[in-house]
Amino acid sequence: MTHDTPSPIALAQSLIRCPSVTPEEGGALALLENVLGQAGFSVERPVFSEPGMPDIENLYARIGTGSPCLLFAGHTDVVPTGETSAWTHDPFSGEIADGRLYGRGAVDMKGSIACKLAATLAFLRERPDFGGSIAFLITGDEEGPAINGTVKLLAWARDRGERFDHCLLGEPTNPSRLGEMIKIGRRGSLTGTITVHGRQGHVAYPHRAENPIPGLLRLCSGLIVDPLDDGTAHFDASNLEFTTIDVGNPATNVIPASAKAVFNIRFNEGWSAESLGAEIRRRLDASAGNIVRFSLDLQPSNAPAFLTQPDAFVDVVAGAIEAETGLKPTLSTTGGTSDARFIKDCCPVIEFGLVGETMHQIDECVAVADLEQLTAIYRRVLDAYFPSSSA
Amino acid sequence: MTHDTPSPIALAQSLIRCPSVTPEEGGALALLENVLGQAGFSVERPVFSEPGMPDIENLYARIGTGSPCLLFAGHTDVVPTGETSAWTHDPFSGEIADGRLYGRGAVDMKGSIACKLAATLAFLRERPDFGGSIAFLITGDEEGPAINGTVKLLAWARDRGERFDHCLLGEPTNPSRLGEMIKIGRRGSLTGTITVHGRQGHVAYPHRAENPIPGLLRLCSGLIVDPLDDGTAHFDASNLEFTTIDVGNPATNVIPASAKAVFNIRFNEGWSAESLGAEIRRRLDASAGNIVRFSLDLQPSNAPAFLTQPDAFVDVVAGAIEAETGLKPTLSTTGGTSDARFIKDCCPVIEFGLVGETMHQIDECVAVADLEQLTAIYRRVLDAYFPSSSA
Repeated sequence: MTHDTPSPIALAQSLIRCPSVTPEEGGALALLENVLGQAGFSVERPVFSEPGMPDIENLYARIGTGSPCLLFAGHTDVVPTGETSAWTHDPFSGEIADGRLYGRGAVDMKGSIACKLAATLAFLRERPDFGGSIAFLITGDEEGPAINGTVKLLAWARDRGERFDHCLLGEPTNPSRLGEMIKIGRRGSLTGTITVHGRQGHVAYPHRAENPIPGLLRLCSGLIVDPLDDGTAHFDASNLEFTTIDVGNPATNVIPASAKAVFNIRFNEGWSAESLGAEIRRRLDASAGNIVRFSLDLQPSNAPAFLTQPDAFVDVVAGAIEAETGLKPTLSTTGGTSDARFIKDCCPVIEFGLVGETMHQIDECVAVADLEQLTAIYRRVLDAYFPSSSA
Repeated sequence: MTHDTPSPIALAQSLIRCPSVTPEEGGALALLENVLGQAGFSVERPVFSEPGMPDIENLYARIGTGSPCLLFAGHTDVVPTGETSAWTHDPFSGEIADGRLYGRGAVDMKGSIACKLAATLAFLRERPDFGGSIAFLITGDEEGPAINGTVKLLAWARDRGERFDHCLLGEPTNPSRLGEMIKIGRRGSLTGTITVHGRQGHVAYPHRAENPIPGLLRLCSGLIVDPLDDGTAHFDASNLEFTTIDVGNPATNVIPASAKAVFNIRFNEGWSAESLGAEIRRRLDASAGNIVRFSLDLQPSNAPAFLTQPDAFVDVVAGAIEAETGLKPTLSTTGGTSDARFIKDCCPVIEFGLVGETMHQIDECVAVADLEQLTAIYRRVLDAYFPSSSA
């Protein structure tokens, strides 16, 4: 790195100082526009709207017209701070103490955006004629409803003829140490509600009523008695969690008319939302027999399971990580969903960023050394992805 | 019956026209005071209070000082009407149509009070020197919290030295036809709350959380897998109903911290609230093992199971019913709780009244013929309970 490219620490501090809690832009995208524009990127700032929702600002930047095109994706919006007074350092001050940079977004994911930016600027200074293309696709709606963010931004880019060969998304993928884990896919998510229908009545006359609760106990128990699967080569076993059961009957002498349970399943590539919904219905039907009257309401799922097959691009990223940290990263599909579920329809996408331990918490922070090291990793990725013709 | 004693139909109409929805007296007790006073009863109108609750009017009347003393117990308060416009006849108009008297309280239990009153007045006219005593103990707080009603009225009477030999309570005991059923006891009632304690977390990271819902499913299922008992000679099997399960977690990506279920048990004479609570705890402990962390909160129960052993008094009432209706009444302990659970501590108590089909409902009504027949039954009870010395 030359000495006159911006440091990732200064960039991360500047980004953290922009109060960009979803849906606020907070100056974060303007800062990126400015830095990328000065580096020669053409920058666009599409704003997307939806009736009844706040407008959301986004950013798309590209340099180069050649192939391949490497896409750096991410988001500058952050989750709320929680009780500000509980923070050791103001969440938007970007203070450094004991080798750690504090602030909301430090790891999720202003820190990794700063690293990508610093790595890219240094790369371009040394290799202005690298021959390919680099794009930044940054949304302000990842932590919110994700309606006016990456989905629309990808469609907007596609309509303009933009094509990408690979994407590296900067979510904090490492559980506790930089270099541990790349995400090469994500489990899908399916939410459903089971309602058992009974007949209200007085507890003293149960034969005149039909209590829905024993039926719900039976259906719910039947749903979890057998595992959904044993996992696959790259995925954990699919997992169902009941998130709530609610009847809402305040009268202790009344048998209620109906009872509801809500579940969420994180599922692997062995299932689609459709095949999984059918399996849930099959299990419920088997438990219900002719006895329990129920309905199943599945929420439309926009979170399928997906896997980016490990290939040369994964090798490039894993190699860069190992060269910098000495660690062979696990190729994982654990954790929640991310915008990768949308990007995977455009190009192969993998995720590698900072250490997630403090994300979404009070005193979110990142080791300054991690910012330096992640920048070096991203730089190695660029060097390997765009080999110089002399190499 | 002589022709110048009031008819039960006119009395029932007058009582129905008093809008005595708990806690309102509505003129109903004043009417009884007037009628009973004219017939020679000494009448008292004790009012009971409790901080934070409306004052409740009650009535106690007695004629005679001799033994035995027969107690007619009941209540003039009624449950709310529900949507008045849904009634075919105004709920407080006491209209008669097609042989039925309509109105709130027609069967529960202004109708049977009117019958007792008419039977008593006719009896006294013919047998003024019957030698025993007849008492009316009428509360205005049976359909409400039952705090300032029969419990306090019985204590008040006991403090005055009043003693009763038998009580006939006028609840609507017949499921569909007058004469079918006497209640000679009631099941007890016990309410409890099970709370399973877990640890909140994100559904994508179930190993970092502890979902309380599967534990609650297990505990609740374990509670109802075996019946509590098989019933006794005079009681049905004890029965547990879950009345509600509530978690109240609106977030479909969050594993909740705790989950609650509430149950109510109607139990027979084989159990006390204490022994039953111990059995519930034993079952929950067995299901929970070392895996499920839970707490059990049992509400203090003021509704024990009780049985009035069938004896000569039951024979008197059953004989009167059979003589009038041709039916041999079932001696039952089914249904909900009633003020008999308090009276049984003073004297043997049984219950016989009208047909309960329409009680607490829109268009509550009673067949005029039933009022006539019930009056005749009560009159036969009086005649048999106080045999004339010439008999």
